[in-house]
Amino acid sequence: MSLSLNQRTTQRWTVAEAVDGCVRHGLEAVGLWRENVAEQGLAESVKLVRAAGLRVSSLCRGGFMTAGGLPGDEGRRAFARALDDNRRAIDEAAELGAACLVMVVGGLPGVTPGEPLPAGPAGARGVAAGGGGYGGVAAGGFSRDLAGARERVAEALAELAPYAGERGVKLALEPLHPVYCPDRAVLSTLGQALDLSLAHPEKQVGVVVDTFHVWWDPRLFEDIARAGRRIVSYQVCDYLHPLPADVLLGRGMMGDGVIGFPPITRAVLAAGYTGDVEVEIFNADIWAADPDEVVATMKARYEDVVLPAGA
Amino acid sequence: MSLSLNQRTTQRWTVAEAVDGCVRHGLEAVGLWRENVAEQGLAESVKLVRAAGLRVSSLCRGGFMTAGGLPGDEGRRAFARALDDNRRAIDEAAELGAACLVMVVGGLPGVTPGEPLPAGPAGARGVAAGGGGYGGVAAGGFSRDLAGARERVAEALAELAPYAGERGVKLALEPLHPVYCPDRAVLSTLGQALDLSLAHPEKQVGVVVDTFHVWWDPRLFEDIARAGRRIVSYQVCDYLHPLPADVLLGRGMMGDGVIGFPPITRAVLAAGYTGDVEVEIFNADIWAADPDEVVATMKARYEDVVLPAGA
Repeated sequence: MSLSLNQRTTQRWTVAEAVDGCVRHGLEAVGLWRENVAEQGLAESVKLVRAAGLRVSSLCRGGFMTAGGLPGDEGRRAFARALDDNRRAIDEAAELGAACLVMVVGGLPGVTPGEPLPAGPAGARGVAAGGGGYGGVAAGGFSRDLAGARERVAEALAELAPYAGERGVKLALEPLHPVYCPDRAVLSTLGQALDLSLAHPEKQVGVVVDTFHVWWDPRLFEDIARAGRRIVSYQVCDYLHPLPADVLLGRGMMGDGVIGFPPITRAVLAAGYTGDVEVEIFNADIWAADPDEVVATMKARYEDVVLPAGA
Repeated sequence: MSLSLNQRTTQRWTVAEAVDGCVRHGLEAVGLWRENVAEQGLAESVKLVRAAGLRVSSLCRGGFMTAGGLPGDEGRRAFARALDDNRRAIDEAAELGAACLVMVVGGLPGVTPGEPLPAGPAGARGVAAGGGGYGGVAAGGFSRDLAGARERVAEALAELAPYAGERGVKLALEPLHPVYCPDRAVLSTLGQALDLSLAHPEKQVGVVVDTFHVWWDPRLFEDIARAGRRIVSYQVCDYLHPLPADVLLGRGMMGDGVIGFPPITRAVLAAGYTGDVEVEIFNADIWAADPDEVVATMKARYEDVVLPAGA
């Protein structure tokens, strides 16, 4: 295993700066984000990572495939848009030679990430009152049909997996901590993501193990072993406690939170994972710090905190 | 099923006031908290609920049994204190004739509920550096040994379950949302709580299904069915999104959040649950409101939002 910088950790760096930073700090791999790649230009980004001899450990991110759960035309259009956008993401991942395209699948239909619940015409409750109305979302509202949202993800995956396979791209289903279930990902456990992946060939769909999202899961070690070679990305960062008001920024440098990393790292290794270990941290203090110092700390903590003794 | 007021929902009411409130609003059951019972006096509380003809649907709460994971004498003393306190809670539940004693098992050893992580002499990381030191908590620090904390819960339960059984009290293991894993409960899923309960006779240990904590769980319906008669408490409230800065107060009146209740209620009924449905809401706005209005809203929402059509 070798350490990779997910460029979100050094939020202010462009693709060119992140590539330079990796080379300067002796890292062999980088995880890129689509927005940054678009700013740098896809062809230029490809040229930069190749010239530097870096592996692209992941492209972040595809997904957000649940809006098809909205009623009628709105749902159909949203579903089609999501598929189109994901096909573009797959094309970009193929160009970059990324080890995987990370898929954050999306939350309840009609809920916008990080925003309050929409108060549509159905009132504060957002669904038709009563037990029967859980498919009945009024315009501008949202759906509480969690099981349905999960079905939309499976449907979208059935469309996208063969497309990815043809282009040599692995889709990496990322289970997110349940605190993100309303707005970012209705995939909430590794076991659930794994079960979903198993409907597709191993070369098309795998799973992400991100310590922040899964550290609490009582089935974690069992599901890591069961996942085996389906694990296509191992991401590490710590879980801060208490979480900040914006829970998206609750990620910390390894060692600053509550996660005991070595048993998880050992399990991922034992499952046969041979890819890079990406450090992806969303954290206002870390984003305000000097990126070179962040990368230096990241390297030291990786050795001290993430790797098992003797690894 | 019949509706019960957990007195935390009407936070400012004493036991006497909550009992009066239940009678005034035609409820047949009340869920009590130990602090409030202590203030009212145990004998007086017993007298009040009996005179009113109310069932006590639960006593909240026992638990916090993980501090035994701290090293040396500190751990041994903490474990003994936790057992003593839980035996007292069981005695109180027996006196009150409560349907169960709700057990919130506690978080990582050394982490105080709602408080920042302690920065003990081991530094911000709170454990000895490196992979081998995860049992090595310095004084004033905390432990990241989640697996060990879960073992402490099982050990404490082995002590307490027979004691509870002798007094006719059922211990109700409550899985809490994973956001509370660091500081309040290392039991994070219904399946995990159920597996733990199965080591003991059904009349000694069961599980709580609280919609706030479990709504996101992809295995929820499977585990509710598997739990069957082990379900000894069904608690309902909504999951607000986004959560407030103090996540403890992220509970909402049913219909104000993201949970689709009818499928869950239907599953709990199908599992054979015949007890009361307790509404337990921690929420600053609801606590500031007139308790009688809160109870009136609670009754209306229970009918409109929680019960399946035709129930």
